[in-house]
Amino acid sequence: MSDLFDVLVSTPEMDEAFSDGAALAAMVRFEAALARAEARVGVIPESAAAAIASVGVNAFDARAIAGTARASATPAIPFVESLTAAVAAQDREAANFVHRGATSQDVTDTALVLCLRQARTALDATHARTVAALRRLSTEHASTVMLARTLLQAAPPTTFGLKAAGWLGSLTRTYRSLAKAFDEAVMLQFGGASGTLAALGPDGIRVAELLARELDLPLPDAPWHAHRDRLAALVACCGVYAGAIAKAARDVALLMQGEIAEASEPGGGSSTMPHKRNPAGCTVALASASRVPGLVATYLAGMSQEHERGAGGLQAEWTTIAAAVSSTGSASAAIAGVFETLRVDPDRMRRAIADTRGAIFAERAMLRLAPSIGREAAARAVAEAVAAAARGESFAETLLANPEAAGALTDGDRQTLESPDAYLGAADVFRHRLLGD
Amino acid sequence: MSDLFDVLVSTPEMDEAFSDGAALAAMVRFEAALARAEARVGVIPESAAAAIASVGVNAFDARAIAGTARASATPAIPFVESLTAAVAAQDREAANFVHRGATSQDVTDTALVLCLRQARTALDATHARTVAALRRLSTEHASTVMLARTLLQAAPPTTFGLKAAGWLGSLTRTYRSLAKAFDEAVMLQFGGASGTLAALGPDGIRVAELLARELDLPLPDAPWHAHRDRLAALVACCGVYAGAIAKAARDVALLMQGEIAEASEPGGGSSTMPHKRNPAGCTVALASASRVPGLVATYLAGMSQEHERGAGGLQAEWTTIAAAVSSTGSASAAIAGVFETLRVDPDRMRRAIADTRGAIFAERAMLRLAPSIGREAAARAVAEAVAAAARGESFAETLLANPEAAGALTDGDRQTLESPDAYLGAADVFRHRLLGD
Amino acid sequence: MSDLFDVLVSTPEMDEAFSDGAALAAMVRFEAALARAEARVGVIPESAAAAIASVGVNAFDARAIAGTARASATPAIPFVESLTAAVAAQDREAANFVHRGATSQDVTDTALVLCLRQARTALDATHARTVAALRRLSTEHASTVMLARTLLQAAPPTTFGLKAAGWLGSLTRTYRSLAKAFDEAVMLQFGGASGTLAALGPDGIRVAELLARELDLPLPDAPWHAHRDRLAALVACCGVYAGAIAKAARDVALLMQGEIAEASEPGGGSSTMPHKRNPAGCTVALASASRVPGLVATYLAGMSQEHERGAGGLQAEWTTIAAAVSSTGSASAAIAGVFETLRVDPDRMRRAIADTRGAIFAERAMLRLAPSIGREAAARAVAEAVAAAARGESFAETLLANPEAAGALTDGDRQTLESPDAYLGAADVFRHRLLGD
Amino acid sequence: MSDLFDVLVSTPEMDEAFSDGAALAAMVRFEAALARAEARVGVIPESAAAAIASVGVNAFDARAIAGTARASATPAIPFVESLTAAVAAQDREAANFVHRGATSQDVTDTALVLCLRQARTALDATHARTVAALRRLSTEHASTVMLARTLLQAAPPTTFGLKAAGWLGSLTRTYRSLAKAFDEAVMLQFGGASGTLAALGPDGIRVAELLARELDLPLPDAPWHAHRDRLAALVACCGVYAGAIAKAARDVALLMQGEIAEASEPGGGSSTMPHKRNPAGCTVALASASRVPGLVATYLAGMSQEHERGAGGLQAEWTTIAAAVSSTGSASAAIAGVFETLRVDPDRMRRAIADTRGAIFAERAMLRLAPSIGREAAARAVAEAVAAAARGESFAETLLANPEAAGALTDGDRQTLESPDAYLGAADVFRHRLLGD
Repeated sequence: MSDLFDVLVSTPEMDEAFSDGAALAAMVRFEAALARAEARVGVIPESAAAAIASVGVNAFDARAIAGTARASATPAIPFVESLTAAVAAQDREAANFVHRGATSQDVTDTALVLCLRQARTALDATHARTVAALRRLSTEHASTVMLARTLLQAAPPTTFGLKAAGWLGSLTRTYRSLAKAFDEAVMLQFGGASGTLAALGPDGIRVAELLARELDLPLPDAPWHAHRDRLAALVACCGVYAGAIAKAARDVALLMQGEIAEASEPGGGSSTMPHKRNPAGCTVALASASRVPGLVATYLAGMSQEHERGAGGLQAEWTTIAAAVSSTGSASAAIAGVFETLRVDPDRMRRAIADTRGAIFAERAMLRLAPSIGREAAARAVAEAVAAAARGESFAETLLANPEAAGALTDGDRQTLESPDAYLGAADVFRHRLLGD
Repeated sequence: MSDLFDVLVSTPEMDEAFSDGAALAAMVRFEAALARAEARVGVIPESAAAAIASVGVNAFDARAIAGTARASATPAIPFVESLTAAVAAQDREAANFVHRGATSQDVTDTALVLCLRQARTALDATHARTVAALRRLSTEHASTVMLARTLLQAAPPTTFGLKAAGWLGSLTRTYRSLAKAFDEAVMLQFGGASGTLAALGPDGIRVAELLARELDLPLPDAPWHAHRDRLAALVACCGVYAGAIAKAARDVALLMQGEIAEASEPGGGSSTMPHKRNPAGCTVALASASRVPGLVATYLAGMSQEHERGAGGLQAEWTTIAAAVSSTGSASAAIAGVFETLRVDPDRMRRAIADTRGAIFAERAMLRLAPSIGREAAARAVAEAVAAAARGESFAETLLANPEAAGALTDGDRQTLESPDAYLGAADVFRHRLLGD
Repeated sequence: MSDLFDVLVSTPEMDEAFSDGAALAAMVRFEAALARAEARVGVIPESAAAAIASVGVNAFDARAIAGTARASATPAIPFVESLTAAVAAQDREAANFVHRGATSQDVTDTALVLCLRQARTALDATHARTVAALRRLSTEHASTVMLARTLLQAAPPTTFGLKAAGWLGSLTRTYRSLAKAFDEAVMLQFGGASGTLAALGPDGIRVAELLARELDLPLPDAPWHAHRDRLAALVACCGVYAGAIAKAARDVALLMQGEIAEASEPGGGSSTMPHKRNPAGCTVALASASRVPGLVATYLAGMSQEHERGAGGLQAEWTTIAAAVSSTGSASAAIAGVFETLRVDPDRMRRAIADTRGAIFAERAMLRLAPSIGREAAARAVAEAVAAAARGESFAETLLANPEAAGALTDGDRQTLESPDAYLGAADVFRHRLLGD
Repeated sequence: MSDLFDVLVSTPEMDEAFSDGAALAAMVRFEAALARAEARVGVIPESAAAAIASVGVNAFDARAIAGTARASATPAIPFVESLTAAVAAQDREAANFVHRGATSQDVTDTALVLCLRQARTALDATHARTVAALRRLSTEHASTVMLARTLLQAAPPTTFGLKAAGWLGSLTRTYRSLAKAFDEAVMLQFGGASGTLAALGPDGIRVAELLARELDLPLPDAPWHAHRDRLAALVACCGVYAGAIAKAARDVALLMQGEIAEASEPGGGSSTMPHKRNPAGCTVALASASRVPGLVATYLAGMSQEHERGAGGLQAEWTTIAAAVSSTGSASAAIAGVFETLRVDPDRMRRAIADTRGAIFAERAMLRLAPSIGREAAARAVAEAVAAAARGESFAETLLANPEAAGALTDGDRQTLESPDAYLGAADVFRHRLLGD
């Protein structure tokens, strides 16, 4: 695929992690490590290992490999042929020991997890930026009151600090799961043709152990060729994390609407409208995140792979996993940028509360009044005040003009009938808990 | 939806967990527990709590509630109205204290997690059956040799014991994650209108603690109204577990093909063909599992819920979660039945190996010969033997008739050229590790 | 599944179309029609046909059939057994001719399309309501100016009439495709065990013709047991139509935000906040529509059904199709209600334009000025005016205070610099074309 | 994305259609055509149009454009900036008229449909190959009998000719819909900032008409910026067509199993097993097709784009559409190769029927016997014969050894009890109808 077609859903770091170069390097690394491990155990001569390990990435032509991969439904076969030819060119004998005891999927799966390990580093970095930015925003705006909004309608107040902490909590939880999924999925694949390492005779386990050590990868309990659950969990965790990013991005994009304008990212311009400032960061985050659920479904639906190596499900995985992780990385980078540069407008937030003329405090009034004057009387008084607010009059004054209601309220109640600061409940307790303070 | 339309993708236990009765009972339980908690803190009178807690499920008409739920986009509103009316009927005063300080989502989300807790019990039970059956099968067939099959073609041998252990390993890992996701998602939802518990003033946190205790649910760090990640993780884990089930079911269905017939479930009949024995259990498992990836995608795509309560994403969740968990439960029950009753035919397995006339041992011969006689000579000799096997002649005999090849083989090699038992590598080591022995 | 769990994503009409009763009635109708057709051709005795056709829906217990369907992976087998028993109870001989020459899938697929035909009637009706409402709104508001909004930011004006016509155009196109997909998918399934009608010998085609006529269903060129493309197209068209509904619903929900309030549905209340008016109709439309993409993916992924009848893909279809059509029907009903009751506020719309202080006309000024005074000079002048608007001053006045800019503008330009009515381009031409006027 | 990561799910033709070069060429073509159209109407000077139209693809650096596209959430802005700079370099004045009256989405959407038109040509060609190959196979094997298989178990016979015709019918129907969707989606996008062409004043419609003619694209009734239904239908039709391909590919892969071997593609080798012949073409077809359902879901879920231009849904589309069409093209190319080279083994097919020992004719015997000797007696006799067949004895002989059964059968029945050719029903009628003969 092209730079332009994917540009809004990937990043340079992700493109690099899943580039032809990275894939070839990882495959080369696998074969070299395998040769060294086998030489140490005595399965192949040291000289063969040296010859195999001396072949560099430059010996391979990604386009040529891609060009013949379809004929065998795997890039491993033309890759191994290229490697064998390159080894033979320097040591005919050594060519007999290339890829010994391994199967195509050993090299493609292990190469994939090596690419994933690289991608994860980039993800760790962008996620850390988001965490730092949100922690700062939440702390700075611990007491910045704003409207809560439910079903896109004004609700009693909350704080921007709690809102930021809510995003942070969700992003922290979901990234923790994603990191764990990386830990569990990034492991050696090595089982040979049928997953028994039979071709290595009694040395299979020992070769596997050394190979894992060479590649600095954990050794699983058994080869996992047709059991894709660890990768499935990784892709699924991308989906959940991307979903949490999308939630935050949508909130910010909504807050940045011209009519609301309570928070805004610097954003981007328009090709035609000089006045425009678009939520470009949120848009890229949302676009990138929107790809992931479908990719998760594709991966999960492809898990039912036949016997020891499937025909179909497996072969779609490279592109699906790369797309899922890249899109997640793109969403993560975009939201980090948004939060690092977010401008919050506390005045505008307070004004939006005032613009409701107190109507959002109707719940509070209702709860105060119902026990004293009964549900029906309270409902009548509050409805009157709500209607007044809708006409642009004051909710509080209208309510207090109702003698029954007025009589049931304390002085404290009367003074805080429309005070957002007095109606925040446990907002700051929750904020601290979410921040892990 | 009807019994008939869903019958192949749910079970009676799952239908019960997500029935109208279960939902109403959970909502009733939430409101009663809330009232009791509030009474203990002194937010409402003890008498009100007693009146509220006395209302049973019979006071509600699920169909009537459903009939008006669309008007407010939540069943909570007609439910609370029904509850209020039922309380008022016995204690007018108490009706003022119904649902106090809570919001619609508090009752629907908490009811949902209570239903999930019930569903999980059924899942635990069916999963345990599968684990026991697979452990038994793997142990019984530790040395039952069979063809491995890659891309649906015969490969060097494996054992049915390892195959069963592979299914077990994947199902164990994925269920462990699912169980953890249940643990993390099944928690109290209680935040009031805006997620601050403001309506309860200084008593909010205390009420929340008591409410959680009443319901025997963990108390989260903060209300999670618009942050759906824990439920998303649960749904996603259903997808991964269901994918692992589908893999096992597909394998068994393929083994049960008439032309292969190496393993079979008792299966089901046909409406018209007296001779048929269909893989009904595998089919139900596959059908049920096939629903889940799309449901996962739906859930993940719906996570970007606006502000403190979304308009759209949230309201589709009950049906999506119920469908995902029910389908997973159905798949789990079906595969448990399959493995508990699976008949394995070791003779047929061994015959399938023999039917390849030794061709599947070509890899082995190649690896033995290449270091001695060179890759090209080895390839020629092996190709001849493979061609012979394709004509129905013996691979081993043809190979040994080639003097160069014969000369390079030891006596041991010669005797085991077509012996599956001698070419199992680390199969049993892997099997033991997968079983956690 | 329960009434409560599905209530926001289905309607009573859809629940009825996909009820146990409807499914049983359709299956009964198929078997009766088959018997009559076979009797006319002489394949079975007239008396047997009469006995079979006399069995009514009451003879069946949906729950009992569901209870045993899993054992054979189809409800058809217990259904046919029940039918056979019911026939035998009145005419032992006739029981030999029940379901003759048909296969399970003949009865379940044909029953399904009969249910679909019923559901389609309800869809036609709600869609017609939407069309009428949108046509009226578009005509009434042909010249009601409002902000266009791109990336959620204010853009040059449009009309509500064009906006409504845009929704109408999209809904009309997508429903036309859906209706066509219904026309093509609602057809007889009848092929017998292997799709050859072999069991009926030379009479197969004639029986099929008569059966189609009895059921008033088109006869396809051949049985389509494992070729699910027509149903796939139907489900996919549901997805596209639901997507068009979701777009309209999201627009209205955004317009109904308190801070914008340019259009609103009557909406629904809150369980706790007396002042709230929630966009309940849009929310139900969005929630219902949000289910469909995942169901489409499930259906499409299940199309690769093995040979003449699949094991897995097929058996999940009833629930998937029913859910897709029901959700689409629910979305359609909800959006019809929204548009039938939508209140539009032209004053508020005009005020929102004024609130931009002319900034949205920056593009227009730029295009007027660039050819006269050059791109750079024009950009400077416009940028100044945009900055002034952002401070709450007038865009037009600031621009005209720039002598270079002022000099390049005609009198007509000056007077309409901030006039939305003068900057509508071809809006009304497009509106008329979309309405098909 | 890289060559290697996508290689099994795209083709060189598709890569080319959605390459950076193709995208840039299409964007350049749009801007040149726009300038020429505007010059003809007199909106811009002829000289400006000439200057703009003289800029070639070489003036653009795809990587640089990609590098800044994220900042504005569209590649159109850096593209237009590059174009403006290139025009200014030769004619400063002309630069004022670049992209006049258009918006970013006009150029990106129109460029996209131009790329789609190119991709469609490749799809037409591969589909035509498949149609020709299947028509030939169906005709050649009109009377080649084989087992039908339902739920992966042997069923009464069919012909390979009918099987091929079934694939052909489904592929023909679904491609017809896809072609129609291309016809309807490949149309001009041109609406300016808000979709009204206001920036062009009274000339908008005329410019649009000329622009459409220049690009040889149909002119839609109105700009469709936020109404993505025509593209959604295109993507959905890809999903349905790909599903039909997957069904055919799965069937062939199953027929090619070593134990069945009734049909085989030349296939591909293994990196380690010299004897292997893998169904590489079917595997690539299945892998490619498996991506599409998730992409369809992504597209559909992204349709609810806000107002006149969405923030998120839109921006993910390029990659989703390109992936969906490329994968479909890859699946189509793979299946064309499979059917063009498929080897069918009629002897093996007939042998598989014989191997059932007549059991698959149990239905036939049942239908013959039940009317004469009653359902119970018939069932007993048939069950005995089925059991004999399972033991390797003859179904027919066993049945005829039952005097009651034998007495009820005609001479003709007796002679054809196990004859597949005598039990094909309307197979050839259906075959002809599917072929449209």
